[in-house]
Parts: sequence; C-alpha cells; structure tokens
Amino acid sequence: MNSSINIASVLENVQQYFSPKIIAEVNDVYVKVAKIKGEDIPWHNHKNEDELFYILDGTLLMEIENEEPFIMKKGDMYVVKQGVEHRVSSIKECQIMLIENKTTAHTGEVITEITKTINQQQ
Amino acid sequence: MNSSINIASVLENVQQYFSPKIIAEVNDVYVKVAKIKGEDIPWHNHKNEDELFYILDGTLLMEIENEEPFIMKKGDMYVVKQGVEHRVSSIKECQIMLIENKTTAHTGEVITEITKTINQQQ
Repeated sequence: MNSSINIASVLENVQQYFSPKIIAEVNDVYVKVAKIKGEDIPWHNHKNEDELFYILDGTLLMEIENEEPFIMKKGDMYVVKQGVEHRVSSIKECQIMLIENKTTAHTGEVITEITKTINQQQ
Repeated sequence: MNSSINIASVLENVQQYFSPKIIAEVNDVYVKVAKIKGEDIPWHNHKNEDELFYILDGTLLMEIENEEPFIMKKGDMYVVKQGVEHRVSSIKECQIMLIENKTTAHTGEVITEITKTINQQQ
C-alpha cells in the first residue's frame, strides 16, 4: 500500500459514539480514532497498559482518580498511566485519537453497553 | 501531573529541523514531534521497528523503496513497516508527529549530521 490514510476521512465514516476504530498498527500498539459525546464511558483502568489521548477536535473532560478533573482541547495530549482509574466525557461531540497496546480493552475490565471487542474496532 | 500538553505549544519551542522531540511515553513507544524542511534525511530503514508518520501541518514527500513517491498532507497518517528503506523531505516546513518504539534510531543505522541520540530528543 503506497498511500496514506486521512484521519478526517476516516472520522466521517464513524457514526457511533464510544466506538473506537483502529486506523493503524505500529509495532505493539494500535492507533485508533473515536467520537465521544455524553457520559457513557464508565470509570475504569487498564491494569498493565498506558493509554494516550490526543484531541483532534472538540473538548474532552478528563477525570483521573484523586486528581482535579481537567479539560482537554484540540491539539492536547495526555497519557493515562497503567492502573490509574479514569473516565472521559464530553457534552458536545469530541474527536479523539488513542494510542493503546494491542492488548488493551478500551473500557478496561468494566463491561458496559458501549464496550467493543477488538474485532468490532476494525 | 494532572494536565495535558499542547502539541502546538511544544512545536513553538522546536527550533531545529530534523530534530525529533519526545512528547509522550506510552507503553513501549515514544510519541515525538519534529519539523522537516529540506532533504537532509538520508535513505534508511529500521530493521525491527515500524515507524508511524502523522502530518500536523504542511506537506511531506514520502519515498519508499520500489514504490511511487507520494505526498502526505495535514491529517494524513502512514506506517513505514520494519526493514523498509524510506526517506522523507519537504520543500517548505512540515510539522510531523512520529510514533516509534523506544529502541528506534530515527535515521536507522545511517549516521549523518542530523542524527540525534535519544538523550538529544528529550
């Protein structure tokens, strides 16, 4: 494949909120994009894996256990370290990029209505 | 640390071309930003590691061995697979994000004037 993918084009085809889509595979990690709107993501952690959030558009409320919540804006990046309880939400649509190990379950060990398997993220 | 970093702010402080700066560490990979202008990067490969390019601003000429060269624009993403000879260049300034394994040497085994150690990328 001698062409690149465009993130905006991929996001145009993402209809569902809280449904990460794998857009690239680099070594042991997946790069994913997702749209967030609402508060459907439960508090969770990834026991053995860090998770990187990068804001492509909109704003995201990042909540981390024992920390003050903070707002992430377009161009902001934050790494949730392994084992740290966290939750993200957004009132309006927020478009994000994620960098996660291939083994990472996107809602950790918490299974809810929004939880997707890796196959569902292809 | 309960705040995120902003990519644009980091890039404002990057003065030198071809000098990747580590902005985040997630599992076994580094996320880096760099500014490219000119043709100083030699043909090289990363024997055991994939390398992801994401264009933040500007355009990048991507050359891959035995493939037609192609232009990457803002929002485009491409993964150079391990062992594949490649070279990137840009006539005007191009701002990129890289995802690389921590072990990746940014110019592969080719050492030139622009080659930076990981310490120089901190």
